[in-house]
Amino acid sequence: MKAVASYKDDFLNFLFENISVKEPKKLYEPIHYILQLGGKRLRPVLTLLICDIYNGNVTKAMNAAAAIEVFHNFTLIHDDIMDSATIRRGKTTVHKKWNVNTGILSGDAMMIMAYQFLEKYEPQLYKKLNSLFSKTALEVCEGQQLDIDFETKNEVAIAEYVKMITYKTSVLVAAAMKMGAIIADIPDEEAENIYKFGLNLGIAFQLQDDYLDTFGDIATFGKEIGGDINENKKTFLFLKALEVCNSNDKKELLKWYSSKSASELKVNAVTKIFSKNKILELTKTEIKQYTNVAIETLSDLSISEGKKEILKKFGLNLMNRAL
Amino acid sequence: MKAVASYKDDFLNFLFENISVKEPKKLYEPIHYILQLGGKRLRPVLTLLICDIYNGNVTKAMNAAAAIEVFHNFTLIHDDIMDSATIRRGKTTVHKKWNVNTGILSGDAMMIMAYQFLEKYEPQLYKKLNSLFSKTALEVCEGQQLDIDFETKNEVAIAEYVKMITYKTSVLVAAAMKMGAIIADIPDEEAENIYKFGLNLGIAFQLQDDYLDTFGDIATFGKEIGGDINENKKTFLFLKALEVCNSNDKKELLKWYSSKSASELKVNAVTKIFSKNKILELTKTEIKQYTNVAIETLSDLSISEGKKEILKKFGLNLMNRAL
Repeated sequence: MKAVASYKDDFLNFLFENISVKEPKKLYEPIHYILQLGGKRLRPVLTLLICDIYNGNVTKAMNAAAAIEVFHNFTLIHDDIMDSATIRRGKTTVHKKWNVNTGILSGDAMMIMAYQFLEKYEPQLYKKLNSLFSKTALEVCEGQQLDIDFETKNEVAIAEYVKMITYKTSVLVAAAMKMGAIIADIPDEEAENIYKFGLNLGIAFQLQDDYLDTFGDIATFGKEIGGDINENKKTFLFLKALEVCNSNDKKELLKWYSSKSASELKVNAVTKIFSKNKILELTKTEIKQYTNVAIETLSDLSISEGKKEILKKFGLNLMNRAL
Repeated sequence: MKAVASYKDDFLNFLFENISVKEPKKLYEPIHYILQLGGKRLRPVLTLLICDIYNGNVTKAMNAAAAIEVFHNFTLIHDDIMDSATIRRGKTTVHKKWNVNTGILSGDAMMIMAYQFLEKYEPQLYKKLNSLFSKTALEVCEGQQLDIDFETKNEVAIAEYVKMITYKTSVLVAAAMKMGAIIADIPDEEAENIYKFGLNLGIAFQLQDDYLDTFGDIATFGKEIGGDINENKKTFLFLKALEVCNSNDKKELLKWYSSKSASELKVNAVTKIFSKNKILELTKTEIKQYTNVAIETLSDLSISEGKKEILKKFGLNLMNRAL
């Protein structure tokens, strides 16, 4: 097996050999632009890692990894339009650098290109991968819709929230892993366990994102702390606080969240309510639960203990960003 | 063989049995809305007709027909956003009835749902249909980009214009037919001829749309006459006029097209320049040329003369809207 870091390099070489700026340039330039913005390339690396773990042909998994990464970047373009975001990975977002129409159309083209990467596979495998891909892609859209719905919804249950982040984020991580497993041609049940591992790890990862946005530090998190609070985002922290805190704290919290203005004062006040109500600890517990479910899934796998250890380490590393 | 009209009814029954408003409602309601707005359902009918002509199983072709129709309606939603259009088939456009974000996201979901319709086919056939579908879908995006590019381009050659309408419109008509042929399991060469028939008919149809927008009447055309002129659209008529008219007429035409205001005066003045320069006749000639190429393709087909006659009639009917 290769070092995990080398998958990323190999993948990027593959990706940019296969993504070029063709005519019409205004359609393909934004696609090239977003794909070279960087990022951890977590999803494609996971496809390759899982394929390798099951002694599959890693080179063969490149196209599936590319499909996942191109699809993920398509969602970033369209989500950035919907969120009116101006910055993505420290650079100007596509619809800001060009315009909204370009963002829509280049995004559409990327979704199709993602499907085209899968055409390299033989029909049986192609159908298996494509079906998983479409199912996942539609769930991602549903997750994004739920996220939008929550903005104007007064009461969001924690279970609904977890469903939203599962669809919006985790299913793609899980599908990325499962595709690697499918390409390595392992039994369906084993592939399903890999999916479960990815799904729970993905949920833990997203909850950690909520956590770090308030309790992290900018050096490890890479984003301004308190952004979610200033945007009145109904994160796990906020929803948990509504669930557990007394009526005075709840009132104060809702008062802060009813104002559209962003300030350090607001971030500090809300963080204080969270801290007082042990939201930090409650969120950590929740994250650990999902991480544990993921790691427990590993015991059901038919791979060597050494390989289980690689996956466990990968998972824990991912979850140890700053927790 | 069935009467052409019955394909449409059967198709609509199939479509609405398979498209329901699920949760999250705000994602699926706009999809149901645009799909029930009506329209000729030209593309899915063509898929079924061609499959039937080759003695294929028409019921089996339903999923491919639905994929094409759902994809087509996805492009309508995204195009209407890009064009800031408020009316589609006499009703409010999706992004006006809901909002731009809904239009983007429901459109994205539709593209994925289009792919999912193809999952009903066995792997070999699935791959063949899916590959054609993706190739076509990406061309449609390229066509839309070329159309946008032309808005700000000073000189557009007729050949470039034909390429644009080919990609934006005709490839989907051609692919709709070819899919019917593929499902009927005919030799590749024969399916390619069907594609060629559809492609040329599609180009003729689109040129006719340009023609009717200026020289048609509202009763048959169903749209306000002169819309293209008022929007300064670089149609075949306009580009042909620039090519053939003298420098005075050219100057006047460009002057009208440099103003953003819409008026009856403008429509009349531009139409007069077109008429004086025989643009009506030149466009008719061009339409007939593409129609003839389409009809000549029929002679290469291995079907009975009676069936060729059905396709010929279908093509001519389509081209006789008001020409």
